[in-house]
Amino acid sequence: MRFSFQTQKKCCQTLARVGVWHTPHGPVETPRFMPVGTLATVKGLTPAQLQTTGAQMVLANTYHLHLQPGETLIEKAGGIHQFMGWKGPILTDSGGFQVFSLSELRHIREIGVTFRSPRDGKIIELTPERSIHIQNTLGADVIMAFDECPPGKADYSTVAAATERTYRWLERCIDAHQRPQDQALFGIVQGGIYPELRISAAKSLIDFDLPGYAIGGVSVGEEPALIREIVQITAPLLPATKPRYLMGVGTYREMAITIASGIDLFDCVIPTRFGRHGTALVRGERWNLKNFQFREDFGPLDADCPCYTCQTFSRAYLNHLVRSQEMLGYTLLSLHNITELVRFTQRIREAILGDRFIEEFGHWLN
Amino acid sequence: MRFSFQTQKKCCQTLARVGVWHTPHGPVETPRFMPVGTLATVKGLTPAQLQTTGAQMVLANTYHLHLQPGETLIEKAGGIHQFMGWKGPILTDSGGFQVFSLSELRHIREIGVTFRSPRDGKIIELTPERSIHIQNTLGADVIMAFDECPPGKADYSTVAAATERTYRWLERCIDAHQRPQDQALFGIVQGGIYPELRISAAKSLIDFDLPGYAIGGVSVGEEPALIREIVQITAPLLPATKPRYLMGVGTYREMAITIASGIDLFDCVIPTRFGRHGTALVRGERWNLKNFQFREDFGPLDADCPCYTCQTFSRAYLNHLVRSQEMLGYTLLSLHNITELVRFTQRIREAILGDRFIEEFGHWLN
Repeated sequence: MRFSFQTQKKCCQTLARVGVWHTPHGPVETPRFMPVGTLATVKGLTPAQLQTTGAQMVLANTYHLHLQPGETLIEKAGGIHQFMGWKGPILTDSGGFQVFSLSELRHIREIGVTFRSPRDGKIIELTPERSIHIQNTLGADVIMAFDECPPGKADYSTVAAATERTYRWLERCIDAHQRPQDQALFGIVQGGIYPELRISAAKSLIDFDLPGYAIGGVSVGEEPALIREIVQITAPLLPATKPRYLMGVGTYREMAITIASGIDLFDCVIPTRFGRHGTALVRGERWNLKNFQFREDFGPLDADCPCYTCQTFSRAYLNHLVRSQEMLGYTLLSLHNITELVRFTQRIREAILGDRFIEEFGHWLN
Repeated sequence: MRFSFQTQKKCCQTLARVGVWHTPHGPVETPRFMPVGTLATVKGLTPAQLQTTGAQMVLANTYHLHLQPGETLIEKAGGIHQFMGWKGPILTDSGGFQVFSLSELRHIREIGVTFRSPRDGKIIELTPERSIHIQNTLGADVIMAFDECPPGKADYSTVAAATERTYRWLERCIDAHQRPQDQALFGIVQGGIYPELRISAAKSLIDFDLPGYAIGGVSVGEEPALIREIVQITAPLLPATKPRYLMGVGTYREMAITIASGIDLFDCVIPTRFGRHGTALVRGERWNLKNFQFREDFGPLDADCPCYTCQTFSRAYLNHLVRSQEMLGYTLLSLHNITELVRFTQRIREAILGDRFIEEFGHWLN
């Protein structure tokens, strides 16, 4: 078995847990934050720099890679690991989220979704079979089921219909999957803001006995309280022997709260997007490094952070780089921000192992 | 003596030489290409990445640093080495070139030059004393005299007057220099395209017995034949016991030709500027990585290059990054391009040491 999840420790006061998810490209120690490398690059960082952040599994986006450079080219390059120079585990999403949220002129039918390519205007059809085929071709360790993502505020019947379709599409994804020995297919719990739909979706999914499960559709502009409620209802229904991945969430509080409900994996574009806008994540806060207050601040961004940025440069230098719109500023802040979020989940991991989760992270759980 | 230049080997067929220039921040093995870090950052590279290129001395621009973040801030940060995290030798230019070539509304008098700051519109006066004071405050290992740079096509009498003024300004620079033990002040031979002015400038300069000499005013849009002629006339007049720096030149052919006339140091923005435009320097050629021919080319940029880019990624991946306008593409190409030009000068160095300069680099000397 090339994929297995071992629980090393359960929290004595919450549903939090510490585990190891074994993949063909190495282990992922959970709970853990995963950075996003949309176009087979975590923006601004070399794989060598990325490795110093403590990141283990990295995401890439099927939709974007299908458009540029195309999965066939990546296959010819020897697969996505070889292509982007990342030797650790990689996860690709299904492309569904981008098609439903970014594409214009999309048209949804039972067979799948058609949309106009933003690159060359051609009509593209994405179906469960095609998404899995693209992901099989890309060759990531974890691939995601192609699901229908209704808008966050969709009414009950719309979400119910999308959730039903998501099961039918999952069956087609499983049938289409050609490389189950090399690539673990995760199912996605949808159901919008409706607890009963989330519960029935989770219960239906576990019958498929998949190697891992994700909770989707909670990240985009949703209220933190809603994320918390949905995860509290859903996560405990998912099998304890499989990893649980909360898609698109990467804020301190939501990670802490949902780890307490049993979530193991997170991803979010925040650390690199903030980095490119001159914002640093420091001990739970967001600092705009362009601010005048940092101009003559010669201390490190965070004296406790082991990252290259904090170990080498001052806030004043980062302020100078950001004010001067120097590329290095964005790279150094992205490097720090990813390290910060990975470390946050690593520290929670250590706390759970030492029976100190509530003691050390209780202030995040309110 | 904190500064000294030792000649290790003289070429038996040309005026080329191998030396070591000792500075307070370590040795510079010559001949050697120096990358440019205008705003106290070599664009897109961390100091750790820069170190892997083989670069030893790095440039920074006094004019740009005076405008942002200001020399006083850099002094408070502990000096430019501490500020930018580069532990090796650093050279600052005088600001003269930028004032004469970039500034609007400049006004030249015997006392110095006034110009309008492009940053906030304030009138700034740059004099020999002020340039040296700013450079003393920045704290680089090598500082440059403030000279008048007439336009490349200026007539004889204009260039003659500017060259005369440059001597008078050099005397004022020497008088103003407060840190001769820590910072070596280099004089600059001007004289435009007029051999007799270059000769008289070089002869006048050596009377000052400076720790190093530069040849200026040859890089901007000049014909290669003219660069060659000026350097062939000028360089041999400069003392053999001091380093010779050809300002702003960093093309393969011009470096090889002028090394043969006894030049030791070079700088140029080409490797990073090309990198930011998706162009790689490979074995003497310029390759636009965006070109379709690289799309499915899975070999390294240059199999013989030891840089991280060539050791890790394919041309196809670089093509993908450049086409996608990903920051990492610019970083990886800049890293390679600097390595390439530093290695070119290193290989010439090895060839001179082994009495193979003409044999191996003769094809560059025509």
